[in-house]
Amino acid sequence: MSGSSIHKIVIVGSGNLAFHLAEAFQLAGKEIVAVVARNETEGKTLAQKVSATYISNAQNCPAADLIVLAVSDSAIPEVSKHFSHHQAIVVHISGATAMDALVNEQHGVFYPLQSFTKGKPVNFRETPFLIEGNSPDVARQLTGLGQNISNQVYPASSLDRRYLHLAAVFASNFSNALYGVAEKLMNKNTTLPFSILHPLIQETALKIQQLAPKAAQTGPARRGDEQIMKAQLELLKDQAELQDIYQAISKLIQQNYA
Amino acid sequence: MSGSSIHKIVIVGSGNLAFHLAEAFQLAGKEIVAVVARNETEGKTLAQKVSATYISNAQNCPAADLIVLAVSDSAIPEVSKHFSHHQAIVVHISGATAMDALVNEQHGVFYPLQSFTKGKPVNFRETPFLIEGNSPDVARQLTGLGQNISNQVYPASSLDRRYLHLAAVFASNFSNALYGVAEKLMNKNTTLPFSILHPLIQETALKIQQLAPKAAQTGPARRGDEQIMKAQLELLKDQAELQDIYQAISKLIQQNYA
Repeated sequence: MSGSSIHKIVIVGSGNLAFHLAEAFQLAGKEIVAVVARNETEGKTLAQKVSATYISNAQNCPAADLIVLAVSDSAIPEVSKHFSHHQAIVVHISGATAMDALVNEQHGVFYPLQSFTKGKPVNFRETPFLIEGNSPDVARQLTGLGQNISNQVYPASSLDRRYLHLAAVFASNFSNALYGVAEKLMNKNTTLPFSILHPLIQETALKIQQLAPKAAQTGPARRGDEQIMKAQLELLKDQAELQDIYQAISKLIQQNYA
Repeated sequence: MSGSSIHKIVIVGSGNLAFHLAEAFQLAGKEIVAVVARNETEGKTLAQKVSATYISNAQNCPAADLIVLAVSDSAIPEVSKHFSHHQAIVVHISGATAMDALVNEQHGVFYPLQSFTKGKPVNFRETPFLIEGNSPDVARQLTGLGQNISNQVYPASSLDRRYLHLAAVFASNFSNALYGVAEKLMNKNTTLPFSILHPLIQETALKIQQLAPKAAQTGPARRGDEQIMKAQLELLKDQAELQDIYQAISKLIQQNYA
C-alpha cells in the first residue's frame, strides 16, 4: 500500500519554515492539531492561521500522527526528548542533522531542499523532499505525506543528506556570497546598478538545467586567459581575501580542463 | 535627436555571439551587408542565414555604417587594423577589453552582458547592453542601435566595464564553478541526482532580485554555526582545494556580519 495514514499533525516551532509547511499540510487536507512554540506571538499567529491550538509547553501536546520539529539544528535533540512519551512519528526537517539526533520510538527526517524567505510563497510542488525513517513503515508514511505536497520525493540516508547539504552550501550559500562580492565591486567602483547583473545571474542558474556545469563553464579561467586574470587580480589588489577566492576558484576551474 | 542612423552592418566573426547578434539586428530591420570570417563553413552558414555576402578577407569589405568585431579579445587590436581604411563605426563587443584597443577613426563598444549558448535562443530585449563611443555622436548612434534590440541600454566607460566584467566573473563564472563542485560532491558521495539541487539554485538566483545578497544570505557561516562548518570541512578532508574555498568564502560571509 502506498500513501500515508498521517492526518493529525503537530507543528513545533514558529519560524519561517514552520509557517510554510503548516500551510502546505493544511492545503493537502491535513489537520494541524496544535502549534507548540516558545514565541507566543508568532506561535499564536501561526496557530490562528491554520485553525490550530496554540500550546507553549510540550507536556500539553494533544494526540497526533506526526510531530514536526521545525526548530534550529542545535535544539533538535533536546526538543525531541520533550516528546519522548508521545506515540506519534517525530521528524526533524534539517539537512545538516542526522536522523539519530531524535530519541522517539518512531522517528524520521522530512527535509525540504529549498531556500525559504519569510512572506514569499513557496512552491512545494517543485521542492525536493528528502525522506528517512527509522523503520520501513515510517519511511513509507513520510514518503506518502511528502507526495501529498510535492512532486519530488526522494529517500535519502543521513550520510547522503550530509553530503547533499554540503553540496547545497557550495551551490547556494556560497553563490549568494559571490553575488554579494559582485554587488560590492559594482557599488564601489562603477556608476552602474547591481541589477544590471540580474539577467546574467538568472541565465547562469538556468543553464545548468540543460548543460552540465563543466560544459557551461565560461570566463577567463576557462579560456586560460592569463592576461585578463592578472589584470583582474590587480583590480583586487587592496582586497587580499577576494584575491584568495579569485585564485582558488580560478585554479579549480583550470584543473577541471587540464 | 535620439535614435540611430546605423542601417548597414558588417559582422566580423562567426562564433556563437556573431550568430545571435546578426539575427537580432536583422529582426530589428537592419541590413547585414557582409559576414567577414576566417572560418569559411561557419561564415557561409551565418551569411546565408542573414542574407549577407560571405567574405574571407577584410580588404573586400563593402561600405557599411557599422562594423561589429565579434572576435576573441586578443584578436581585437589586430582585426581593428584590418578595417583602418574604413569609414564605418567599428565596435567590439567585449566586456574585458578597453575601447582604445580599437584604432579606427570612429569606434566604440557594444557589449551585451549575458552568457550565450550555441543553439539556445537569446532574449536580447532583457539583455543589458553597455555602450561607449569615442565621440558623443558615436555613443548616441550606438545607444540608438542598442535600444532597437534591448530595453536595457547603459552608457559605461572602459573602467566601469572592467569592474563590471570582474563582478560578472564572480557572479557568473565562479557561481557556475561552485555548481560544478556541488555536482561532483553529489555524484561521488550520494545516490541522489544533481538535478535535486536545481530548484534551490534557481531560487537563490531569483531571490537577489527582491533582496540584497547580504539580506538573502543563509547557511552555516551566516549563522556562525562552527560545529557544522567543522563537520563539513571534515567531509572535504581529502580535497585541500575545496577546503580552501570553503574557508575563504565562509570567512568572507562572517566578516560581512561581524
